[in-house]
Amino acid sequence: MSPQKVSRENHPFRYERIAAEVMRLIEQGAYQPGERIPSVREMSKQQGASVSAVLQAYMQLENLGAIEARPQSGYYVRHASDTEFPEPESSSPGLDPSHVNLHDLMMMAMRDSLNPSLVQLGAAMPNLELLPTERIDRIMASLARSTERVSHHYEIPPGLEDLRVQIARRAVMNGCQITPNDVVITSGGVEGIHLCLYAVCNPGDIVAIESPMYFGTLQLLEVHNLRALEIPTNPREGISLEALQFAIEHNPIKAVLTISNFNNPLGSCMPDEKKRELVSMLARYEIPLIDNDVSSEIYFSEKRPMVTKAFDQKGLVLQCSSFSKDISPSMRVGWVSPGRYKNTIEWLKFTTSAATARLPQMAIAQFLETGGYDHQLRRIRREYANNVAMLSQAVMRSFPSGTRVTRPTGGFVLWVQLPERVDSLEVYALALKNNITITPGYLFSPSNQFPNFIRLNAAVWNYPIERAVRRLGELVAESAG
Amino acid sequence: MSPQKVSRENHPFRYERIAAEVMRLIEQGAYQPGERIPSVREMSKQQGASVSAVLQAYMQLENLGAIEARPQSGYYVRHASDTEFPEPESSSPGLDPSHVNLHDLMMMAMRDSLNPSLVQLGAAMPNLELLPTERIDRIMASLARSTERVSHHYEIPPGLEDLRVQIARRAVMNGCQITPNDVVITSGGVEGIHLCLYAVCNPGDIVAIESPMYFGTLQLLEVHNLRALEIPTNPREGISLEALQFAIEHNPIKAVLTISNFNNPLGSCMPDEKKRELVSMLARYEIPLIDNDVSSEIYFSEKRPMVTKAFDQKGLVLQCSSFSKDISPSMRVGWVSPGRYKNTIEWLKFTTSAATARLPQMAIAQFLETGGYDHQLRRIRREYANNVAMLSQAVMRSFPSGTRVTRPTGGFVLWVQLPERVDSLEVYALALKNNITITPGYLFSPSNQFPNFIRLNAAVWNYPIERAVRRLGELVAESAG
Repeated sequence: MSPQKVSRENHPFRYERIAAEVMRLIEQGAYQPGERIPSVREMSKQQGASVSAVLQAYMQLENLGAIEARPQSGYYVRHASDTEFPEPESSSPGLDPSHVNLHDLMMMAMRDSLNPSLVQLGAAMPNLELLPTERIDRIMASLARSTERVSHHYEIPPGLEDLRVQIARRAVMNGCQITPNDVVITSGGVEGIHLCLYAVCNPGDIVAIESPMYFGTLQLLEVHNLRALEIPTNPREGISLEALQFAIEHNPIKAVLTISNFNNPLGSCMPDEKKRELVSMLARYEIPLIDNDVSSEIYFSEKRPMVTKAFDQKGLVLQCSSFSKDISPSMRVGWVSPGRYKNTIEWLKFTTSAATARLPQMAIAQFLETGGYDHQLRRIRREYANNVAMLSQAVMRSFPSGTRVTRPTGGFVLWVQLPERVDSLEVYALALKNNITITPGYLFSPSNQFPNFIRLNAAVWNYPIERAVRRLGELVAESAG
Repeated sequence: MSPQKVSRENHPFRYERIAAEVMRLIEQGAYQPGERIPSVREMSKQQGASVSAVLQAYMQLENLGAIEARPQSGYYVRHASDTEFPEPESSSPGLDPSHVNLHDLMMMAMRDSLNPSLVQLGAAMPNLELLPTERIDRIMASLARSTERVSHHYEIPPGLEDLRVQIARRAVMNGCQITPNDVVITSGGVEGIHLCLYAVCNPGDIVAIESPMYFGTLQLLEVHNLRALEIPTNPREGISLEALQFAIEHNPIKAVLTISNFNNPLGSCMPDEKKRELVSMLARYEIPLIDNDVSSEIYFSEKRPMVTKAFDQKGLVLQCSSFSKDISPSMRVGWVSPGRYKNTIEWLKFTTSAATARLPQMAIAQFLETGGYDHQLRRIRREYANNVAMLSQAVMRSFPSGTRVTRPTGGFVLWVQLPERVDSLEVYALALKNNITITPGYLFSPSNQFPNFIRLNAAVWNYPIERAVRRLGELVAESAG
């Protein structure tokens, strides 16, 4: 059974929702550490749920280390420090650029991601249950019934105008002054980065990147025969500007590649003021910034983080985004806002893939226009915030001491540093034998900075996953000796 | 009004169908040159059409030079030789490879192709009226109504298995022994060639190509920073094997790039035996052949031409194809059968664009499976054969002497050699002033072999196009002085 396919509504583990609700209240401080939470009976009334469901929920929270049962007294919120692992420290890669070669490892991870007999903690797939696929499908069905055969009309770059209008409108709402003419539609976010690398680099060039960096992007550097210079990156605030400046002053860096909002796998989110500094520093050196911006909308706090593009005064920021994380990964619709490289990107898009499929573009444009998107996003943010917290707690409960865990404020992946002597490829192999897939840290650095790290996907939270995390913890503990 | 959008059924020029029918009878020899054809009144009875429609049809055929009116006697089939232009000769490019730089010209041609106020003789767009879009749309609507949200499931290379099964089945039926595992789905045919060039070449390498060659492919060579070595190519039989062998023996050629069936723009179709020779010659040199095979299904004769892939014993043929010409250009579904490069192509696809949109793949798979495709193809072949003949006749009637015209046996483009002193860019500019767009010959050779050639799209035949061709002939004649 693929965990992606489990419907939350009909799920046998209804208790999860109660556990999630209590966890939220704890996180929001409604129940403080050391405080007693409502009794099983009280909670059963509050939630309109059966006593047994609440009992199960409380047991789950106990397992997660969030609460503890005190005999004859009730359930109490545990002191977080009891079980909390520290965050990983900033990365500290070497000073030399590396060629990338992660080919086989990546293909293995990709194939795992389609294996329905594995518990999927590996690929950073969104939770299909949370996507507005039903609404999108209704729109697609209605477009397909149009007698005008609109979705078959000739389509060329920069892509469907209606969609570019919607994208520009949302950007402006978020403080980024672009027009529909600044946007080129691509076949997903990956193709956008691919075209941007073409536009600004030549084979052999050096590109400065955050460390760790999403392996798909590293693969693109391999395809383009570029060298990656890994820059120290903080798990909260992203790339180090001091280190980047040092690197620029000592290397002929042709482009900088970041995921400034919710780096995959790190979860880091560069503070807005730091983004402004980054953009203005690169402007001084006339170095383009390719910002892979696929997760900005999935923030857990009150305020959407700005995008680096909003601070771009010289047209040097190439913002790449997509609807794969929040609408549908299989529609393959993304976009680039490439600043001064717009004509080049448009030409490259036409030359390398002619156009992006038209019906998916039309459906997404209509979905954005008719206002379902924001409602959708609110739901996704809430659920992912919860699922990340649940996974994080589970790791802290199950993994051996010496483990460190990130505190992402958006996205849906967790970056876990295992004790020094643990090898993530060994854990990967052990996990696979237990029908669990994870992503080993090797994939996130061309110079192999993260042998004892793993990335876990937190998009889905359910019982099989909870159990898998517990098992993973045992495997890591065994590995740690 | 875009000529693509005119519905044949409701078209005011019903006479066209009668003209097309008579033209077919003439071509098939039912009416011989010099013979009298049925009178207007007889034809009106035969066709169940009004006398005025038949009169109009006969006037059109007169304009095209197919028949002539003899006073007091009736209409007679003209001797073809009266107006027939010869074919262009084999191309004879120089011996040195060229870098490609056709950027601006191509973007101009691309933008023209979307301008609805122009008569579209430029872009090689299929005739939307002939595509099975209604059937495809019904399938898409039904897939989108599935409660399983099937089209949103995770999708990775090599692409949808159902579709790969259908593609392999059809290949086997046509004498090409491949399995579904030999196929990688791409976002249209262009992306396939893009990935193949990555798989077999490095920047600076030399690729031998047919001359002339579709400009989109030349652009890809520019993107990949490859040098094109143009090989003499015959308008009927394709690339010269002798010249190719000579080139291989004198240059470090890394790949050969052909459109062996119905070269765009040349219309050439390499005889099957010659294909076998080409493949076995390249096998001796261990040189991969990238064969852009998007038009094989659009043949006018009785028998489908073989594909070069059918003769591939060493896995050196990379066959690229798509459903853009015969199902829908805007669904962006193509495929590669890359022989020994399969794993590389799969990795490149994942790295550079992750996957191809899923719903279009599912819809095409279902369309192929449920048997509508062959019926569709029969219709397309018939119509394009007719439209190519009509356009060809119109050119012969309207263009000045010294013009040469190809005799394509498939596809839907015509390659026209204008008198020596005519510059195709001047014709392009003059035509544009008359709201007509054509493709200038400059686009089809990096070393500028075809300044006095133009490519005309024959996918649609109707009155505005007939009139446009007549006007074009006048402009060319003026240009010729």
